[in-house]
Amino acid sequence: MSLALPSSPFPEAFVPASVPVTDHSAALRGEFVAALPMRHAGLRTVTVRWECAGPPQAAVVVLAGGISAHRHVAANDRFAEKGWAEGLVGPGRTLDPQLLRVLAFDFIGADGTLDAPIDTADQADALALLLDHLSISRLQAFVGYSYGALVAQQFALRHRARVQRLVVVSGAHRAHPYAAAWRALQRRAVALGQLQCSEEHGLALARQFAMLSYRTPEEFSERFDAAPEVVNGRVRVAAEDYLDATAAQYVARTPVTAWLRLSESIDLHRVDPAQLQVPTVVVAVEGDRLVPLADLVTLVEGLGPRGSLRVLRSPYGHDAFLKETDRINSILATAIRLPGDTA
Amino acid sequence: MSLALPSSPFPEAFVPASVPVTDHSAALRGEFVAALPMRHAGLRTVTVRWECAGPPQAAVVVLAGGISAHRHVAANDRFAEKGWAEGLVGPGRTLDPQLLRVLAFDFIGADGTLDAPIDTADQADALALLLDHLSISRLQAFVGYSYGALVAQQFALRHRARVQRLVVVSGAHRAHPYAAAWRALQRRAVALGQLQCSEEHGLALARQFAMLSYRTPEEFSERFDAAPEVVNGRVRVAAEDYLDATAAQYVARTPVTAWLRLSESIDLHRVDPAQLQVPTVVVAVEGDRLVPLADLVTLVEGLGPRGSLRVLRSPYGHDAFLKETDRINSILATAIRLPGDTA
Repeated sequence: MSLALPSSPFPEAFVPASVPVTDHSAALRGEFVAALPMRHAGLRTVTVRWECAGPPQAAVVVLAGGISAHRHVAANDRFAEKGWAEGLVGPGRTLDPQLLRVLAFDFIGADGTLDAPIDTADQADALALLLDHLSISRLQAFVGYSYGALVAQQFALRHRARVQRLVVVSGAHRAHPYAAAWRALQRRAVALGQLQCSEEHGLALARQFAMLSYRTPEEFSERFDAAPEVVNGRVRVAAEDYLDATAAQYVARTPVTAWLRLSESIDLHRVDPAQLQVPTVVVAVEGDRLVPLADLVTLVEGLGPRGSLRVLRSPYGHDAFLKETDRINSILATAIRLPGDTA
Repeated sequence: MSLALPSSPFPEAFVPASVPVTDHSAALRGEFVAALPMRHAGLRTVTVRWECAGPPQAAVVVLAGGISAHRHVAANDRFAEKGWAEGLVGPGRTLDPQLLRVLAFDFIGADGTLDAPIDTADQADALALLLDHLSISRLQAFVGYSYGALVAQQFALRHRARVQRLVVVSGAHRAHPYAAAWRALQRRAVALGQLQCSEEHGLALARQFAMLSYRTPEEFSERFDAAPEVVNGRVRVAAEDYLDATAAQYVARTPVTAWLRLSESIDLHRVDPAQLQVPTVVVAVEGDRLVPLADLVTLVEGLGPRGSLRVLRSPYGHDAFLKETDRINSILATAIRLPGDTA
């Protein structure tokens, strides 16, 4: 399936004038417009934005993260700002852009221009269009964390021949009903803000509730055990300063529509593990309040001989992928570089 | 300490004309106005509302529940509507109003007229005024659940001679920092609603988030595993109907100010377990997301030889006290009726 127009490789890649185009191992960015038949929203025109770092002939690994992640995974020579997966991508790591091509993309809807239900299947199909566009026939691996883990499953289900193995971190075959309720209420916080034209206020509150689901009581107990204060006649608890700061950063960079539609997308996700035919390493974090270990055990059981499970214990809960980078890196080393792999 | 005016017993007890006043074992209700020196709000005039069922000469047990609880614990001959602790109070139960006087009161602030920080110490002092008012010198026991457990601790700390033993269920010596953050965000949902004069909308959302903290993922997984739906272009998850219904009921009966100030009051609570001199049975529920088992272990350790711990496993989490009534009743039987007790 290819609806990408045009389909030649790298046609609109953004290359600053100061960088010689012969420097093929430098990071590249690009974007293209494609027609995408969406599961719940019909045929839509979407813009797919990508970044790729690594030698042109190397094997390709796609890395996809949570709904707030994007195409810039780590600082590189050309794009120096920090990425969302620093510590996991770089020289000496398993995801080493000197040895592999690390490809990432902005999720469909992440720019806030697509106000419709977005299925994880839609993201998988957009990635397939991107691979067509870049003339990449097959991925060495798809490493997906959180929302990215759901997209990885859909990609394996819908484009089985195009990926050799999956690494699925903190993402199950369907949203847990409790986590889904938690997200639904976050979306209602945004709706409450929108009623008074205060979308940002609502999004800040949604993000703060989300932070509680990403982290653990153990971490809060360590960091925020100070006594509450009475400020202007109101009780203020110790974690509120932290929650305010993190929400302000988030709201400044996140379109409300993008957040709403990608939050929904997590809850729309449903696949049958038995239908997944790609060898998959599932990584679970004990204590993850959003994606319980039990659900990832169910996923691995459904995978049968194609699945294996790694379990981490971390005070960071759902955020462990971004915090326990050494341990995740070790898991990736085993999961991605197996004997007999071909690029 | 007695600031109650007047101090004679039962002066304003509400007794319907159709009930003979000689029927001393019937339930009684009353209220009185008192001046209460509050920890964070100075001297305030408060109304204390109470209900008591049981023989006039029997030993008195106070039962206090969560911030939504009130003076009417169970239906009785005089007040036939259901109470909040049905299944725990009645003939044949440990809390049998044929054998004991079961006393309960509306928390200070529960009527929504007190818009100031309310400490659990204030509730304890209000109860002491109530005991003065009813000429009750000493309680056989104070059974406190959730917020009521915090009030029980303060009562034992501040009025040690007036209570023989405590049963403290799902309430620790201080709010867990994670639970405190969760409540602080619920209060922000109300504040967001208030910005547009839609307090009820905000309170409904706050209550829905609170429900997630009262219950467990295990229960949600059992009840709400249906696939999400796309309704009017928006994703709706399976638990939303339930959450809507429960919030509507709650908002209809709860003044917003009452909820805000009692929610704050939970977070203000801090006592030193080592200072508690009253024999105390602590009941913890494994899987309670608001009051972790570990915190109740800390409480019991601080109590030293005066403390003992009972642990329940329940899919109802923080709400187990209201759901696992047979098991709670058995624990109360041991905890309240010890050999050598005098009324």
